[in-house]
Amino acid sequence: MTDIQIDAAFCVIGDEILSGRTKDKNIGVLAEVLTNVGIELKEVRIVSDDEAAIIEAVNQLRMRYTYVFTSGGIGPTHDDITAEAIAKAFDLPCEKDAKAMEILTAHYAAREMDFTEARQRMARMPKGASHIDNPVSKAPGFIIGNVHVMAGVPSIFLAMLDNVLPTLKTSAKLLSDSVVCGLGEGTIGTELGEIQQKHSDTLIGSYPRYDGMSFTTEIVVRSREQAAINAAILDVKAMIERLTTV
Amino acid sequence: MTDIQIDAAFCVIGDEILSGRTKDKNIGVLAEVLTNVGIELKEVRIVSDDEAAIIEAVNQLRMRYTYVFTSGGIGPTHDDITAEAIAKAFDLPCEKDAKAMEILTAHYAAREMDFTEARQRMARMPKGASHIDNPVSKAPGFIIGNVHVMAGVPSIFLAMLDNVLPTLKTSAKLLSDSVVCGLGEGTIGTELGEIQQKHSDTLIGSYPRYDGMSFTTEIVVRSREQAAINAAILDVKAMIERLTTV
Repeated sequence: MTDIQIDAAFCVIGDEILSGRTKDKNIGVLAEVLTNVGIELKEVRIVSDDEAAIIEAVNQLRMRYTYVFTSGGIGPTHDDITAEAIAKAFDLPCEKDAKAMEILTAHYAAREMDFTEARQRMARMPKGASHIDNPVSKAPGFIIGNVHVMAGVPSIFLAMLDNVLPTLKTSAKLLSDSVVCGLGEGTIGTELGEIQQKHSDTLIGSYPRYDGMSFTTEIVVRSREQAAINAAILDVKAMIERLTTV
Repeated sequence: MTDIQIDAAFCVIGDEILSGRTKDKNIGVLAEVLTNVGIELKEVRIVSDDEAAIIEAVNQLRMRYTYVFTSGGIGPTHDDITAEAIAKAFDLPCEKDAKAMEILTAHYAAREMDFTEARQRMARMPKGASHIDNPVSKAPGFIIGNVHVMAGVPSIFLAMLDNVLPTLKTSAKLLSDSVVCGLGEGTIGTELGEIQQKHSDTLIGSYPRYDGMSFTTEIVVRSREQAAINAAILDVKAMIERLTTV
C-alpha cells in the first residue's frame, strides 16, 4: 500500500462485443476487483480486432495510467491479433516464447492432441514479456511493461486476474457507505449539492433507479476516511428525513 | 440506406460503472440495435464523471465517427455534469432550454411537485441542441452536431434510442451466418485461416466458449452479400466434417 493513488485502464478487444453478438462480462468484474484492492479504474475502451485501433488505444492508455489490462484476441485463430499488436505498440518483435512452447507442448502431448501451427500461435508474445499463468486452458497471458494481456473468455480472464492481482501495487482503498431513499433526485438535488460542498473531503454520488413505476435513489458517499463518510451520511439521512416528512 | 459505411461510437459516462457498483446494461443493447440497422459500432469508451475526461473523449469520437452516443450524467444532481461538458466540447453556452423548461414545468405541475432548482438542471443543454423525447420521465436528452446525449438508466436509454433510431442514416446491413462446432480453436485455426484467405469478401470470426468442462467454437461469417456468406459457410462445414471424422 502506498500513499499515491494507483490507477488503471481496461482495453477490451473484440468485434464480437461491438457487434452485440457477445455481451461483455469482464468489465464489471475487473471494476469490482480493482475497487476492492484500492486501484482506481479510470477508463475503459472497447476496440475492434483491428491492429491500428489496438495499438492506438494501448499506447494512449499505458502512458496515462499505472496499469493497463486487456482482454481478448490471444487465441489460436487468424482473427486473434492482440499479441502482435501489443508487440508493435512497444516496438518489440513478437516471437514464440520458449517457456510457453514448453507448457503447450506438454499440455497437448498429455491429451494426445496435435500441437498445430494454430495452437503454436498462442505461444507468441512480445520479446521479454513475462507470463500470466492460465490454469484453465494453459495458454498463458503476458505482461509487457505495465500492460497485462489476458484472455476474453470470462472464466479464463478471472483466473488470470487472480494470478495478476498479488503482483500489483495498491493504494488506500476508497471506502464507501450508501443510503437508499424513495425520494427522486429532483427532490434531493439542491440540498445534496450543498452537502457535497460542506463535506468536500468526500465524493458524493447519486444514482437513480427506475423500476417501471417509480424512482428510488441511492446516495453513495466515498472517502479514504471512515469518519468523513460517517459525518456526511449523518447529514444525508437528516436531509432525507426532513424532505420525506414535508 | 447509403453505399458508404455509417459508423458510430458510444461514450458511457459514470463513476458508478468504473467502480463496479453499477453494471452497464446499455453497451450490449446499443451494439445489437446498431448492428441490426446497419450502423457499425467501432469504439466504446467508459469515462468518469470528470469534465476534462468527457470533453476529450467526445471530441475525439465525434471527429472520427458518423455518430456518437453518450449515456449518463444528465440527471438533476451535482454529479450530473454531462450537459455542461458537452457544451464545452462544442464551445457553446449551456443554457436552460425554453421548450425543456416548458415540458418539465407542466410535468411537475401535473404531479403537484415543486419544479426545484435541481430539477431545472435537467433542462440545461448546449444552445441550439434539439431534443430527444423521454417518454418515461420527461426530461429530454439532446442532439448537438452528431452527438446524441441520452440517459444512463437503461429503460430511459432504450426509450430515447427508439426515438433517435428513425432519424439516423444507415448503411447496408452486414449479414451473418454462423456454425457452432465441438472442435477447439486450436484444431480448426490453421484451416480456418486458409478459408478466410480464400473468401476475402467475407469477415470470418471465431469465438470460443468454455463451459467449465470443454470448449465449443462458434464460427461467424459476415458480409454484405448473402452469396459470399453461403460459399464460405460451405467450406467451413466441410472443414468441420473433415476434422471431426479424423
